[in-house]
Amino acid sequence: MSLALVLPGRGGEGLAKRLKALDEQLDIQLWPDCPAPQTVAFAVTWQPPAGALAQFPNLKVVQSLGAGVDGLAAELPSGVTLCRTISPNLKTDMRDYVLLAILAEQRQWQATANDQTNQHWQQRHYRRGGCVGVMGLGELGGYVAGQLAGLGFSVKGWSRSPRQLPGIDCFSGEAALGEFLAGLDYLVCLLPLTPQTQGLMNSAFFARLNSAPYLIHVGRGAQLDEQALLAALDGGQLRGACLDVFIQEPLPRQHPFWRHPTITVTPHNASITSGNDLARVVYQNYLAMRQGTALNHVVNTTLGY
Amino acid sequence: MSLALVLPGRGGEGLAKRLKALDEQLDIQLWPDCPAPQTVAFAVTWQPPAGALAQFPNLKVVQSLGAGVDGLAAELPSGVTLCRTISPNLKTDMRDYVLLAILAEQRQWQATANDQTNQHWQQRHYRRGGCVGVMGLGELGGYVAGQLAGLGFSVKGWSRSPRQLPGIDCFSGEAALGEFLAGLDYLVCLLPLTPQTQGLMNSAFFARLNSAPYLIHVGRGAQLDEQALLAALDGGQLRGACLDVFIQEPLPRQHPFWRHPTITVTPHNASITSGNDLARVVYQNYLAMRQGTALNHVVNTTLGY
Repeated sequence: MSLALVLPGRGGEGLAKRLKALDEQLDIQLWPDCPAPQTVAFAVTWQPPAGALAQFPNLKVVQSLGAGVDGLAAELPSGVTLCRTISPNLKTDMRDYVLLAILAEQRQWQATANDQTNQHWQQRHYRRGGCVGVMGLGELGGYVAGQLAGLGFSVKGWSRSPRQLPGIDCFSGEAALGEFLAGLDYLVCLLPLTPQTQGLMNSAFFARLNSAPYLIHVGRGAQLDEQALLAALDGGQLRGACLDVFIQEPLPRQHPFWRHPTITVTPHNASITSGNDLARVVYQNYLAMRQGTALNHVVNTTLGY
Repeated sequence: MSLALVLPGRGGEGLAKRLKALDEQLDIQLWPDCPAPQTVAFAVTWQPPAGALAQFPNLKVVQSLGAGVDGLAAELPSGVTLCRTISPNLKTDMRDYVLLAILAEQRQWQATANDQTNQHWQQRHYRRGGCVGVMGLGELGGYVAGQLAGLGFSVKGWSRSPRQLPGIDCFSGEAALGEFLAGLDYLVCLLPLTPQTQGLMNSAFFARLNSAPYLIHVGRGAQLDEQALLAALDGGQLRGACLDVFIQEPLPRQHPFWRHPTITVTPHNASITSGNDLARVVYQNYLAMRQGTALNHVVNTTLGY
């Protein structure tokens, strides 16, 4: 029984080495060099080329490299279980990024850095606390929302299906979106990319904001209408934005986000699964498959997360 | 029985107004205009001019404007109780500043901002977690240490006298300083200014560091030998520093800290007591004095904190 790494352009060699370090008996086939596709029961992939997974007739489990499975379900042969990769560090790293984005905005950290460049001593006003709205209350969003509440923020949460989380004021579904969006100081997007969340943050969405929150987007680029964001910043529906994900990545050099005075751009590295963490997560699920025990982070392919 | 505000250059008028808003019956005398000094039982002050407090023959309580009492004890008439001002927000604001300083350094936030200016997409490595050493385990330091431990940092604490804090590896006294300083990723100074802490962070101190931590100084400027800090950065005993307090404030324009590549300068605003918070704290202690109940945040004038 073997394990295929279908990671075009992502250097599967490193992952192969780390997996071998965990278990030197592992039989690993590195796509496109798969000499015995009929032996492959477990595949690790990200954006697989069309048909690449279909070549494994005995495939049982596909593990997405990411916390999301962006469009992977379409390539999934029927009867195959899809899992995503969420390490403990992925959650704390995401919390740290969101917290940093909030605190840096509250403390006018960039303006203070500019003051330093100008050798200018100016005690700028700072904000504290406030109401944070978190969209997406799954593994990552639910964790981040809880951690922010623990630090004293007032936290609202919004998800597709109803959730109850201690200390979070939870809303669900399109009908409750307006109520969720009212009165926010910060808006964090941690939704999975699905047909329902594609283009969710558009001009109609921004029009429902009534308190000029600061947007922190750590979901997926395609959830945000980038022109509508620029209009919402111009129109005062938002007071600023910190963006880690974009429709096109790397963000093109001529893109207006780079030079926008109230947009902070980070290069999709809010939360990166390290090679060692990835190898551990993959190996645990591989063992679970072999032993017939429960797989971690199984995706509902109908919902897409 | 009246209340004197001895706040030269700090606009006591605002505090007087806020106190009146809490209790319009309050009899407030705004120094230097104190028509009936013999009625003053409670004084609020910061860096009082020599002799200013001695003019009140019936003074019972002096409240320092700050969390520290820097040299105030020398001006304190005998038999008078000294209190300092610590509001709940002061503690969470300090936590937020320290957390921001740590996260911004871990995430190379400034380098990423420079990348944005250059329209340059570069996924920089980020640190996570690590060992934070907190010097000073009083109201502020103990709180910050506990909060950092709650976020998953490994936390060591150092204080003059032995302390036990849950989740914190506590050290005390000069003899344990070397052990405390070993293996740190971050070093936070939240000590009060006393004869013992004056100049504490000098070249001998930095020579005991063995893991090139990042210094976050939110104590008092006089605790740091500024030339020794520059030498420690050059010599690699420290990998960088975020400084909120300085020997001379505002930091002089020609000071080398402004342009140092691994020093972040902030203008002594890590944690500011708001006017409203100050008025509440002062009023509560004033009432406690009148009613003979326990005063908040009484200072041991021998220890100086």
